[in-house]
Amino acid sequence: MTHSPLSQGIAPFRAIEISHLARQLRAEGRSVIHMEFGQPSDGAPAGAVAAAKAALGEPDMGYWESVPLRERIARHYGDHYGLDLDPHRILLTCGASPALVLALLTGFAAGSRVMTARPGYVAYRNSLRALGMVPVEIECGARERFQIQARHIRDADPVPEGLIVASPANPTGTIIPPAALAELADACRARDVRIISDEIYHRLSYGAETHSMLQYDPDAFVINSFSKYYGMPGWRLGWIVCPRGLVAEARARIGNLFLSPPALSQQAALVAFDCEEELDARVAIYRRNRERLIGCLARVGITDIAPSDGAFYVYASIAHLTDDSMSLCKRLLEETGVATAPGLDFDPERGSRFIRFSYAVSSELAEEACARLEAWFALHYPAQG
Amino acid sequence: MTHSPLSQGIAPFRAIEISHLARQLRAEGRSVIHMEFGQPSDGAPAGAVAAAKAALGEPDMGYWESVPLRERIARHYGDHYGLDLDPHRILLTCGASPALVLALLTGFAAGSRVMTARPGYVAYRNSLRALGMVPVEIECGARERFQIQARHIRDADPVPEGLIVASPANPTGTIIPPAALAELADACRARDVRIISDEIYHRLSYGAETHSMLQYDPDAFVINSFSKYYGMPGWRLGWIVCPRGLVAEARARIGNLFLSPPALSQQAALVAFDCEEELDARVAIYRRNRERLIGCLARVGITDIAPSDGAFYVYASIAHLTDDSMSLCKRLLEETGVATAPGLDFDPERGSRFIRFSYAVSSELAEEACARLEAWFALHYPAQG
Repeated sequence: MTHSPLSQGIAPFRAIEISHLARQLRAEGRSVIHMEFGQPSDGAPAGAVAAAKAALGEPDMGYWESVPLRERIARHYGDHYGLDLDPHRILLTCGASPALVLALLTGFAAGSRVMTARPGYVAYRNSLRALGMVPVEIECGARERFQIQARHIRDADPVPEGLIVASPANPTGTIIPPAALAELADACRARDVRIISDEIYHRLSYGAETHSMLQYDPDAFVINSFSKYYGMPGWRLGWIVCPRGLVAEARARIGNLFLSPPALSQQAALVAFDCEEELDARVAIYRRNRERLIGCLARVGITDIAPSDGAFYVYASIAHLTDDSMSLCKRLLEETGVATAPGLDFDPERGSRFIRFSYAVSSELAEEACARLEAWFALHYPAQG
Repeated sequence: MTHSPLSQGIAPFRAIEISHLARQLRAEGRSVIHMEFGQPSDGAPAGAVAAAKAALGEPDMGYWESVPLRERIARHYGDHYGLDLDPHRILLTCGASPALVLALLTGFAAGSRVMTARPGYVAYRNSLRALGMVPVEIECGARERFQIQARHIRDADPVPEGLIVASPANPTGTIIPPAALAELADACRARDVRIISDEIYHRLSYGAETHSMLQYDPDAFVINSFSKYYGMPGWRLGWIVCPRGLVAEARARIGNLFLSPPALSQQAALVAFDCEEELDARVAIYRRNRERLIGCLARVGITDIAPSDGAFYVYASIAHLTDDSMSLCKRLLEETGVATAPGLDFDPERGSRFIRFSYAVSSELAEEACARLEAWFALHYPAQG
């Protein structure tokens, strides 16, 4: 039988292994605090849930793409970024993951080289490989604030066909300031590099503003979803803004590769835009969780962390404790009930010395997690405190 | 900027153009009967809707794959096909479309040649091309009952790496009998051809039984979904049964390319398996619609139709009337309100002389459609009656 030559390069999510273990412990009656996945624990805002309930009383929409939702998203680009966006450029997808697949298959031919930062979201590397493209990973450390710099594009040899950029980033949360976004866009334009901008963590920031790459490169693909700020990961709804010249090509692909996004989710999402008060209250909680977690980590001697400007992550070096973050994550989970993600998901080179905490949980759980972590580290690594 | 070299080969769905036109006419107050898409007009069964409503009162499941649903699907293979299936081999997807993408990217390398029947579902050809693979389309006419035969595999030169087979088929509805399935599986085994079996129209048949390819080839990929028999197209939930040796590879890909399927849909789908009485009553309606439609077409002189063994389609030759089925579909829609799909979606070679009717509508609408069609044909093609 045919064997796939690509298999070795595509690693499974290790956070999923941790999550399975966590659910197992919970089933055994243990108290588990889920900080391993990038998903808000609160779920969809009340208004969106009510809209879904109401829609469930009406006839099913079938294979359907909501024009009002596309128009509402376009308006959001006006309200938040001052952009005048043709709704026709917006395509709705079953989450940001297939939106990335769509952008890659529309924007690039097989064999294309696409630059990404390391550490970075695991699906960039793996989806590129699964689609026969070549990830060009650039090691970005604290000096680069864990983000691709314009000089990486200017100096690249050979020039990559594409760049995937994420601000706020996963796993670090770092935000690229407007001037750096503009410089990056200029560098890409000069060398004919197509940009995919993953803006899934927009509206989740704690100081720095989030700007859209579209403000600097109108020909970028922009990816977003309702899974983070809007609290609807299980609803599987995302969108992509297509470059003007590639809308027809993207639309031809989406119909064949994915057909349509979930109908009920589209009806709920339209209302989610009107739930800002509830959603912003959550961001205020994340802000406090973030400060509490950073303080807690400092007290147990974990101080080498990426600038957590946005998203809901702290990406912390544990190099002074171990070079096997997967084992540490498992031990933490088993002994404290706090589930975290090992850095290897984000950085196959140096990730064994990092772990990622997601703090999109309630204040109570964040407080409890910090108490458990402090007690555990005091017991096992007393010298670090 | 980078241009995709694949664009020309990927045509948009023409049925979507018809559908847009149909919705426009409806918005203008016209009475439209939707027979252009392959979707049941009834929506999810009542029990599934109730389960979704109840689940909306509980906390969101987030990124989630339902183990009970995978186990229930495995049990279905026992109940219906006498197969003992490990639930671990079942992966849940956002519909059958991404399940096909997953099967292709797991089972085949770029450049692989994959055989399909022409006419056939448009996404086979287009998704293969979008993923850098090569569709090898075999013209299958009435003599082959519009299906790939074992001899096509035995005689192929060069041997393709894969075969996509669909029974019941779209657009024709033809079913491959068990002996022919076995012969096809044997021919593929002998020449090392990996099979993808699209079984999305199973449980929709009007005489012949539907057998799973897994009964004859345990190493086939099998695709199915809740969009047809279960009436849940807008819920975007499908599944794939993976060959035993490729489960880990498929799982690594699904997490990166698609993440998880819609949570609410999984909870509803689990209950849909218990709604057979309601769903079988619909099949009884489709059966009557089918007879009525075939009778109606015969009366207007359209008699050259594929054996409509299953699914909910009639694929009819209109070669004696026109060689421009898109124009006929538009005219039919504008003048009668009956929306149909032009054959070009399914067959770029001969499809301009075919149209497809989907009869998954209520009895009343099927009757009304037939009345309108008969009146229109009597007026415009009186000699044919």
